[in-house]
Amino acid sequence: MKINIVKRRIMWGDLDALGIVFYPRYYEWIDGCSHLFFDALGLNLVDLSRERSLLFGLVETSCRYFSPGRYHSKIRIETRIDRLRKKTVVFQHDIFQDDTDARMVQGAEKRICMDVNDPDSIRAVDIPRDIFTLFEEAMGSQ
Amino acid sequence: MKINIVKRRIMWGDLDALGIVFYPRYYEWIDGCSHLFFDALGLNLVDLSRERSLLFGLVETSCRYFSPGRYHSKIRIETRIDRLRKKTVVFQHDIFQDDTDARMVQGAEKRICMDVNDPDSIRAVDIPRDIFTLFEEAMGSQ
Amino acid sequence: MKINIVKRRIMWGDLDALGIVFYPRYYEWIDGCSHLFFDALGLNLVDLSRERSLLFGLVETSCRYFSPGRYHSKIRIETRIDRLRKKTVVFQHDIFQDDTDARMVQGAEKRICMDVNDPDSIRAVDIPRDIFTLFEEAMGSQ
Amino acid sequence: MKINIVKRRIMWGDLDALGIVFYPRYYEWIDGCSHLFFDALGLNLVDLSRERSLLFGLVETSCRYFSPGRYHSKIRIETRIDRLRKKTVVFQHDIFQDDTDARMVQGAEKRICMDVNDPDSIRAVDIPRDIFTLFEEAMGSQ
Repeated sequence: MKINIVKRRIMWGDLDALGIVFYPRYYEWIDGCSHLFFDALGLNLVDLSRERSLLFGLVETSCRYFSPGRYHSKIRIETRIDRLRKKTVVFQHDIFQDDTDARMVQGAEKRICMDVNDPDSIRAVDIPRDIFTLFEEAMGSQ
Repeated sequence: MKINIVKRRIMWGDLDALGIVFYPRYYEWIDGCSHLFFDALGLNLVDLSRERSLLFGLVETSCRYFSPGRYHSKIRIETRIDRLRKKTVVFQHDIFQDDTDARMVQGAEKRICMDVNDPDSIRAVDIPRDIFTLFEEAMGSQ
Repeated sequence: MKINIVKRRIMWGDLDALGIVFYPRYYEWIDGCSHLFFDALGLNLVDLSRERSLLFGLVETSCRYFSPGRYHSKIRIETRIDRLRKKTVVFQHDIFQDDTDARMVQGAEKRICMDVNDPDSIRAVDIPRDIFTLFEEAMGSQ
Repeated sequence: MKINIVKRRIMWGDLDALGIVFYPRYYEWIDGCSHLFFDALGLNLVDLSRERSLLFGLVETSCRYFSPGRYHSKIRIETRIDRLRKKTVVFQHDIFQDDTDARMVQGAEKRICMDVNDPDSIRAVDIPRDIFTLFEEAMGSQ
């Protein structure tokens, strides 16, 4: 199972008036981590859009919060594919306090493959075979 | 059933490179709408924290995306209480294109009542009776 | 002199750990107010880009901070044109506490007119005559 | 002269509808880099606030933009002290494309030392001697 790891520090601007991470920030980070997961598979989402008119648009996102993030803490975000269907893929993101391994947040993004060749008729399509195979391999099922 | 309504425009800075709303923005907005819902019940979350050492911390959030938001569109966010338990309350946020009433996003925030009087021992507590009653009334169950 | 006015409330997510507005938020707001100023002149920046290949790109921005913004305060942002040159226009944004008229922030954005018809050779151009005239009128010089 | 260096990648969520960095993001990053500069001097801004009631509040910020940031580009932010006065310090932040060394942005933050011991009477104070000395050393003037 491929797990892509991103480390970052919690910055002042990520905090709310309680001194803990304002939760939409977690979504900014996990969105970025999905992009980096694609990158790690050799897929660049901007190129996919330009060259093959393919997007992986968001159907649903969610996060559960276990412990708050604080000023200058080092965190680790682990991203993997949790589920794979013909048209959709679900990324799971686990955010840990890097030093203690305490889990802070678990997030999920369900993305659907879309053909945007005709902007007036964007529609869900099957994930192309080559990409589907990369996803399967990343899940360790092959 | 009390529904609090907030209108806003989608701004340039809310858009991603596809020209549609970058999804963490929706969470920024619904978080704000929960605060305004408390306000509309006569409860100020900052005062609750200062005067009664009470927080409504986030347990889980989620959004489903139906249609993308675009530049300068006017949107309407409707916030209501969806579920109420002893310690937790779930806010439901429906985001509509204001002119067509097309639903763009449905979001949920599950919040838990916490006593932060002792910062070293923050713990979930029952929602105080007066606040619980306001929630019940907002749900129209009384 | 045309002054475009935008009112908004400071939301929880705009605050830093001191309970005052995290300053990059002011830039998000004044950027939006420049777009709305164009709108108020009958110019839609996205249409200008699509139909005439014109952008008003940023050369320089700045803000001075006089008093901090706090939770749920109502603010008023007044936007006007401060300076106009052949290729550039400077927007001035004054942010006030709406109830007391106390000035909180003064911001400036210098924008340069750019022709993006050829993405490989983006260059500064004179502001087209029709737009320049609208700017002059907005400055009250005609 | 002490220069603190921070590297990061431009993420999808940092881009606007033109596919270039939305400029308030630069301010988020340089604010963070000032905090990390303090850290590199052995000063933790949150501790300074808690233990010595000292803040380095913002008086003025500015950025000049030379070339746009694009998807997944690696950037390098170099932070140094540009000016030092009794009560104020100016941080200069130079943002480079990491591979080409092309300068993308130059930013400045003027911060003033404030005593927040009495929240009802926050006032500017001289930068304490020990901190002033650290700043002088960082400027290489000693």
